[in-house]
Amino acid sequence: MNVISTVSTDILSRLDTLATVSESHDGLTRRYLTTQHRDANDLVGEWMNAAGMAVHQDAVGNIIGRYEGLEDGAPALIIGSHLDTVVMAGKYDGMLGVVTAISCVHSLNERGIRMPFAIEVVGFADEEGIRFQSTYLGSRAIAGTFNQELLNAEDAEGISMADAMRAFGLDPARISDAARDPKDIVGYLEIHIEQGPVLENEEQSVGVVTAIAGATRQTVTVEGVAGHAGTVPMGYRQDALLAASECALAVEDVATRRKNVVGTVGRMNVAPGAANVVPGHVTFTIDLRADEDAKRGDALEELGRCLDEIATKRGVEITARTVHEASSVSCAPWIVSQIERAVEAQVGRVVRLPSGAGHDAAAMSDLTDVGMIFVRCGGGVSHNPDETITEADAAAGAHLLLHVIENFKTET
Amino acid sequence: MNVISTVSTDILSRLDTLATVSESHDGLTRRYLTTQHRDANDLVGEWMNAAGMAVHQDAVGNIIGRYEGLEDGAPALIIGSHLDTVVMAGKYDGMLGVVTAISCVHSLNERGIRMPFAIEVVGFADEEGIRFQSTYLGSRAIAGTFNQELLNAEDAEGISMADAMRAFGLDPARISDAARDPKDIVGYLEIHIEQGPVLENEEQSVGVVTAIAGATRQTVTVEGVAGHAGTVPMGYRQDALLAASECALAVEDVATRRKNVVGTVGRMNVAPGAANVVPGHVTFTIDLRADEDAKRGDALEELGRCLDEIATKRGVEITARTVHEASSVSCAPWIVSQIERAVEAQVGRVVRLPSGAGHDAAAMSDLTDVGMIFVRCGGGVSHNPDETITEADAAAGAHLLLHVIENFKTET
Repeated sequence: MNVISTVSTDILSRLDTLATVSESHDGLTRRYLTTQHRDANDLVGEWMNAAGMAVHQDAVGNIIGRYEGLEDGAPALIIGSHLDTVVMAGKYDGMLGVVTAISCVHSLNERGIRMPFAIEVVGFADEEGIRFQSTYLGSRAIAGTFNQELLNAEDAEGISMADAMRAFGLDPARISDAARDPKDIVGYLEIHIEQGPVLENEEQSVGVVTAIAGATRQTVTVEGVAGHAGTVPMGYRQDALLAASECALAVEDVATRRKNVVGTVGRMNVAPGAANVVPGHVTFTIDLRADEDAKRGDALEELGRCLDEIATKRGVEITARTVHEASSVSCAPWIVSQIERAVEAQVGRVVRLPSGAGHDAAAMSDLTDVGMIFVRCGGGVSHNPDETITEADAAAGAHLLLHVIENFKTET
Repeated sequence: MNVISTVSTDILSRLDTLATVSESHDGLTRRYLTTQHRDANDLVGEWMNAAGMAVHQDAVGNIIGRYEGLEDGAPALIIGSHLDTVVMAGKYDGMLGVVTAISCVHSLNERGIRMPFAIEVVGFADEEGIRFQSTYLGSRAIAGTFNQELLNAEDAEGISMADAMRAFGLDPARISDAARDPKDIVGYLEIHIEQGPVLENEEQSVGVVTAIAGATRQTVTVEGVAGHAGTVPMGYRQDALLAASECALAVEDVATRRKNVVGTVGRMNVAPGAANVVPGHVTFTIDLRADEDAKRGDALEELGRCLDEIATKRGVEITARTVHEASSVSCAPWIVSQIERAVEAQVGRVVRLPSGAGHDAAAMSDLTDVGMIFVRCGGGVSHNPDETITEADAAAGAHLLLHVIENFKTET
């Protein structure tokens, strides 16, 4: 397949070029409304142009290239991902999806192929939410769900989002101009690195995303009684750390017994924290994610009962406070089945998996039906300069996306 | 019992007075070789004098009062505890033992009672080891086990122990003069607050100490694999915190299944320590204490096997390093039985318990046979300005010690 191998080489070298547009030197850092944001948009805009697309930057700072279909002005299949990064990021998270989509359009354009729908490739301006601590700014603006109050949010230097937009050349009063009419959209596709180890373990280059997991984050406090590690016999103790340890194992158990549920205790602080003192106070976090909200609710309910039992058994007080909650997003079955057929044709075996991380597709689902393709990444490592993908996997992803596009049937 | 109630009132008011001799204002702080050390020795020396004792300060800075027996120069029963404190201490830890012993001698002296042995009351200069990070300085000097290398140890201000001794008026070259000949000693008694909750829970004012626990302290490192809390399915994880949680519960289990063994995980640090990251690295401490060294060794061996099993099961690396080790000290059965008979006579029910904390008696056991009495303290709280004892319990302790002294039979 000559076309595909050309596409793939293109992708990796373009991602290397894009990675030079960075605020930091060792790893890649590119935040919303910075000089680097503008430079990345310019660079990506040139590639879009070269691929035969009409390019514009929208009211929130997304860069958009449109490739008309058989008839001008037809509803569009949007294919996108984000161009912003976390601090000290890798080169593939987000950007792979934008560059791959451009390469696919490039291939169509070179072969003079027009589809019954337009294709719009979007490089979203902010998905990670690093600068203003709020995610999905680019995709929410397009979906029409941008929260105007965020314009007052300030970055670490005290610059408000509204001021930063003006400095960038955008008009904060016109953000709603970025919102699209659902009638003009036939669907949304996104290709993204997996950021997890499943495809690597399954020895598959690509996977079909079934849903983007919903998440609950809790902060849990355990109040026990501190004591002398030598003088308080075991039977007299109300050890906050032992209670917290049982809670962490309960989180694991509750998640493990359910399909597509993950639960994590990532932070734990022990006080007073001396080797010869029985811990009296522990705080820890729970991060629970599931592909279905009902499943997550059920897991949380069981976990709550476990925590109560542990508190009663150990004579400690356990208080859990929910600090973040996000609903799950199902990928549209009619799009998922088209991706699956493409995988069957290109790869053979279909690996279906939910995404435990959030993606622009989650925000875009408020506007239109969405589907996602995952590409294997080395060791599941992401949000890290050590993020890797192979040239073969980048090619497989591009190959697959092109197959999906060329065979795409809009919902009837 | 008229004598005893007098003794008791004396004890609490004297402890209040002694507590005013402090480096800090809110809680009590009195470190080795400070002005406060000298002032406390002077005050206690006056009380010893008033109780009919000949007073001197020995070569390491202990204050010693001698009450001759029926014949001058007879071997002595040493009764002591420490006058130094931790930072922000309570008023009873150590000092209760010195003041109670003085009151008992005072009572003997008032009644003109002389025993077949001399009595020496010792206020040890340093048991807590706060200033030079080394414990039992006073009792080790008397036992002849003082480590001369410690003279080079420096305090937080960079002052060596040798210089501090000279500034205090002591000659570091003559420390060995403090060492006593075992032939001149018939035994050692110490009365001390329990610093734990057993007597309070047993509703007993006093208890008989059977042994001073030996201790092992370990630092344990768990190396797992960090990962994204959303994208790494449960089955793929090598979560260092879950492994550490199981270790902490294993420490509890291993200790709980053995009599007079306590095990504590007091410190635990989790890295990277973010709510949305599976922990890759955890360090924690193990503090294990037992009244018998063989029992502690056996518990440690079982714990080692548990840690190995957890490491294998979870695919993590667990490394335990022993950073401190101290042998247990048994109280002499012939002294313990005399204390028990006194408890039976005075209180009725005998509560026997090991001491999980260290005491001067442990160092003195290198010189002579030792016995200890514990006095109930409020909530088991110690090393804290909130340390409390009741007047009735102080009286019961003094009553008991006096009974032991008046009925003391030297080993034949």
